[in-house]
Amino acid sequence: MRVGVLGAGRIGRLHADLLAHRVAGAELAGTFDVDPTLATVGAVEDLFELSDVIAICTSTDTHADLIVAAARAGKAIFCEKPVSLDLAELDRALAAVEEAGVPFGIGFNRRFDPAHGAVRDAVLGGRIGEPQLVRISSRDPAPPPLDYVRVSGGIFLDMTIHDFDMARFVTGSEVVEVYARGAVRVEPSFEDAGDVDTAVVLLTHEDGCLTTIDNSRQAVYGFDQRVEAFGPLGMAASENPLTHTGVVHTAEGASLPTLPYFFLDRYIPSYVREWEAFLAAVRAGETPPVSAADARAPLVIGLAAWRSLREGRPVRIEEVPA
Amino acid sequence: MRVGVLGAGRIGRLHADLLAHRVAGAELAGTFDVDPTLATVGAVEDLFELSDVIAICTSTDTHADLIVAAARAGKAIFCEKPVSLDLAELDRALAAVEEAGVPFGIGFNRRFDPAHGAVRDAVLGGRIGEPQLVRISSRDPAPPPLDYVRVSGGIFLDMTIHDFDMARFVTGSEVVEVYARGAVRVEPSFEDAGDVDTAVVLLTHEDGCLTTIDNSRQAVYGFDQRVEAFGPLGMAASENPLTHTGVVHTAEGASLPTLPYFFLDRYIPSYVREWEAFLAAVRAGETPPVSAADARAPLVIGLAAWRSLREGRPVRIEEVPA
Amino acid sequence: MRVGVLGAGRIGRLHADLLAHRVAGAELAGTFDVDPTLATVGAVEDLFELSDVIAICTSTDTHADLIVAAARAGKAIFCEKPVSLDLAELDRALAAVEEAGVPFGIGFNRRFDPAHGAVRDAVLGGRIGEPQLVRISSRDPAPPPLDYVRVSGGIFLDMTIHDFDMARFVTGSEVVEVYARGAVRVEPSFEDAGDVDTAVVLLTHEDGCLTTIDNSRQAVYGFDQRVEAFGPLGMAASENPLTHTGVVHTAEGASLPTLPYFFLDRYIPSYVREWEAFLAAVRAGETPPVSAADARAPLVIGLAAWRSLREGRPVRIEEVPA
Amino acid sequence: MRVGVLGAGRIGRLHADLLAHRVAGAELAGTFDVDPTLATVGAVEDLFELSDVIAICTSTDTHADLIVAAARAGKAIFCEKPVSLDLAELDRALAAVEEAGVPFGIGFNRRFDPAHGAVRDAVLGGRIGEPQLVRISSRDPAPPPLDYVRVSGGIFLDMTIHDFDMARFVTGSEVVEVYARGAVRVEPSFEDAGDVDTAVVLLTHEDGCLTTIDNSRQAVYGFDQRVEAFGPLGMAASENPLTHTGVVHTAEGASLPTLPYFFLDRYIPSYVREWEAFLAAVRAGETPPVSAADARAPLVIGLAAWRSLREGRPVRIEEVPA
Repeated sequence: MRVGVLGAGRIGRLHADLLAHRVAGAELAGTFDVDPTLATVGAVEDLFELSDVIAICTSTDTHADLIVAAARAGKAIFCEKPVSLDLAELDRALAAVEEAGVPFGIGFNRRFDPAHGAVRDAVLGGRIGEPQLVRISSRDPAPPPLDYVRVSGGIFLDMTIHDFDMARFVTGSEVVEVYARGAVRVEPSFEDAGDVDTAVVLLTHEDGCLTTIDNSRQAVYGFDQRVEAFGPLGMAASENPLTHTGVVHTAEGASLPTLPYFFLDRYIPSYVREWEAFLAAVRAGETPPVSAADARAPLVIGLAAWRSLREGRPVRIEEVPA
Repeated sequence: MRVGVLGAGRIGRLHADLLAHRVAGAELAGTFDVDPTLATVGAVEDLFELSDVIAICTSTDTHADLIVAAARAGKAIFCEKPVSLDLAELDRALAAVEEAGVPFGIGFNRRFDPAHGAVRDAVLGGRIGEPQLVRISSRDPAPPPLDYVRVSGGIFLDMTIHDFDMARFVTGSEVVEVYARGAVRVEPSFEDAGDVDTAVVLLTHEDGCLTTIDNSRQAVYGFDQRVEAFGPLGMAASENPLTHTGVVHTAEGASLPTLPYFFLDRYIPSYVREWEAFLAAVRAGETPPVSAADARAPLVIGLAAWRSLREGRPVRIEEVPA
Repeated sequence: MRVGVLGAGRIGRLHADLLAHRVAGAELAGTFDVDPTLATVGAVEDLFELSDVIAICTSTDTHADLIVAAARAGKAIFCEKPVSLDLAELDRALAAVEEAGVPFGIGFNRRFDPAHGAVRDAVLGGRIGEPQLVRISSRDPAPPPLDYVRVSGGIFLDMTIHDFDMARFVTGSEVVEVYARGAVRVEPSFEDAGDVDTAVVLLTHEDGCLTTIDNSRQAVYGFDQRVEAFGPLGMAASENPLTHTGVVHTAEGASLPTLPYFFLDRYIPSYVREWEAFLAAVRAGETPPVSAADARAPLVIGLAAWRSLREGRPVRIEEVPA
Repeated sequence: MRVGVLGAGRIGRLHADLLAHRVAGAELAGTFDVDPTLATVGAVEDLFELSDVIAICTSTDTHADLIVAAARAGKAIFCEKPVSLDLAELDRALAAVEEAGVPFGIGFNRRFDPAHGAVRDAVLGGRIGEPQLVRISSRDPAPPPLDYVRVSGGIFLDMTIHDFDMARFVTGSEVVEVYARGAVRVEPSFEDAGDVDTAVVLLTHEDGCLTTIDNSRQAVYGFDQRVEAFGPLGMAASENPLTHTGVVHTAEGASLPTLPYFFLDRYIPSYVREWEAFLAAVRAGETPPVSAADARAPLVIGLAAWRSLREGRPVRIEEVPA
């Protein structure tokens, strides 16, 4: 399938490279960017013409309009997360998708990491029973630039949103209540941007499962990404990988290497699998595995988390207005 | 030093056995129990006479009076946790200790586990910086009898109290706010006893550290006890031990053994170290390492947790009346 | 059962302490030593009178005579390894045991370590198939005194003998050929004692399994003890335990604690289980689990290893004369 | 740099793909194969013309002639291991390289695995002292076809040759003596081909280090590749990676995933690094990191191993005739 990539920033270039060389059954149809030196076509419409699938990798504020345009052009759509920071915008975009009847996928790539997938499989396969507790640690190696934070929607919408997705993914249960705490402990300038860099979120799921998430914008030991589900029959967890398996034992103890530094060092294979699963679904005429509902729910949870943090109380999901 | 043990239930017999055979510098002076067949002396006063140190291992509701009596008799006192379920009672007992000027220690043995101790050492030694996040999982293998739960003060006072202590221990910072969620997921009869069997507690410390604790009364894979502290320079964690180090690899994957089943299978060495540290402090005329303040604070946190759970909101520590 | 301990050196005192306090169903009948200040009875015969079982923990050169005496006294006998450095002596002792028809056990305690036991269970339970390769690493933390080495029979009889036992234990197959290499790399004075401190031994078993053993008298990182069996259906291994499960992650990597320092730090539970298994067999009138044949075979392998090392060629087991 | 690939079998296609898409600073100049449908040029000479570097990935019996031809054409040469099964042939090829003064590299890619590299770094950096013992386990997932074994030189030249290289790599010391044992345990037909499928090799190094290697043609649990170096200051090891970091704990114990299945699943990054290091050396006018001496020594060790196996005795390296 011919995939055209909109946006040639870091994530757009990554998708383009993987589509060109590593995703089975994919062909890179071309790329468009507002910077013409990074583009192979001169206009969005030209890219539509060359492509069966459009991958939207531009800045978040352009996603909704591009989704609408691609949907009207009848293209299958893959959009990087989040669709929007605004729930009404997101709903407008997803309504266009539904009206056009085109396949839609959202880029929660971590679902395709085999370790996180093993946690979900243990739950779905009944090996640990219905989850009672989930705990997620998700810590980035270094804080993003302040400019990014000012437009990203803050920690709950640019970072924890992956964890909200993961909580839904491994439990298979929707979130009904959110309690969030946060602080500026790493980068004082985030205060001015209205953001926090250290946070804890407690989610209550529809089925009673309690999920705790902790985040930091800065983990100097690398990209810390762990998910754990606990139930009446056992516990399943994705531990952190290390950069290699060498170990040195001396009289002082044992030394192991660091964690992978960031998502490019850990999650590349999950991007490849994400594309292969999306394209397989499109080809088969099936709903892509991470689709419209999965795009909407984490945004709502994130908005509830912000309200909880501001108001110092648990917030019900239905309190978030569209 | 001659140690007399009050109470010959499970924990009393354990202390007596360790004092008799494994604690360096200790001598078991005798035991008293209301069941005379389990006692070596006929009255509490007889035990006082034989002993330099009194270990109080009776049921919780008798602790305060026995502390007062032992303090008046001028004995060094080691008391199993908790001192009381009632803060006024606890304050009365600790006031007697202070008035008598006798050494007092409280039995939070997990502080003497080398893995948890390594987390604390990493914090105190500056290896990870000032903690920003702590996460604690603490799950028992099987629910206690309903009769126990009815008088134990419930999950936050009989079980999570260890984790409240651990949060203070590894951070070195007092708790100022508590938010708790809980549910009955394992043993429906706990509902009638006013208890929960599954819980999550979020603590805010004086220095801004955020601690998440998750508990279950039943972890079928064994005694799950993990503590982790995260700071600007790194992360320190105590992982679960396994019952042994054998592994089998087949075409289906690798198999490892279970976790230790319960505290007797994991924490015996910590009880021995607890005694050796307590006796060394008494001998040296120093305050025992886990003393009056450490007996009081976790009870207050536990009472705040119960209020938070009932009222569905975060509770400040100062809201708990003495 | 009443157990009398002969010899109150390090290992004798260990057995006496365990028998007195930790071995279920055992009672310490008394101890005899040539140093009367370490003994509870004045003569070997007195100990025989008080005991159902005699534990022989004296120096190796006295084992054979004591076995003969205890056998004639009709006592069940537990002997620390090795029975003798001389095969004819060993045969004389075991002949007396057989003639008397008394139960006999030899102290290869590592068989009762649960991790090594898991390797054996994986083999016997058919999980990995018939072993094709076994590898054993066995490294002591620090070299023994030169005086000990002069009378111990050297590395193959005082140290590797445990590994020869382990090779037979996990495979369930006798050794038919031995090839040994060794060198003095740690302690030059061992050269004068005719010993080596670094060695590799390759065993060929009756069933075709090939076992490699490597030894060092000095592993500065602790007591390194690993056994691995490989077969057509998989691989089973006992990994090294660490002193605790604490880990610290920083920007430089992860740090883990050291290994246990020596056998007292790792194998105490195996001594307890060894006794419980021995006494259970005696009680049931069954052959003890590690008996006469297990005492003889490792000595023969050790003598073959010494010949192989000296002659620079593989040596068949039948070349070792009684 | 423009690299032309000779041979488009499995390994040739792998190199071509990596050079085209993943090796920094490389450009795939073209490929030649006897099967024209797999080639981009019609003759070897055409490839020489297009290329700065020639990668020789054809069958082993053609390597020597192609090396000579490429050397005469003045090309930098990268050759898959082994150069030849015949020492005289190898010497002829390497003589041509030397005469032409062109850069030459041999494809021992495992040197570029970060875990094995960490073992070497620990040795070279002095962290464990001068190695006294090395142990290597190297087990393939499934036996190769009989047709391959008939022409491959057998286990010591097609498989253990990597381990001979690794022993030299991690110790930095040449091998002086070889003792080998082997058996057919997996695939009876290998007997007719004069090969074994299960083997143990003991190497003595110039500096006294003793290396044990064990091999199996079939490890059903995956590609088992471990290297360990032991010295007076510690021990360094490369453990097996697992396919992911998910773990499931139940009442029966813990389950982990399998090992990577084969070299394509473990060593791809090492091929990329191998190329980048080779091209960097060529660019800098330096000797490539794995060069002529590294191509010759493992072949000599392999030939000595075969002689040792046949004659049942240790074989000195100098016994192997050129």
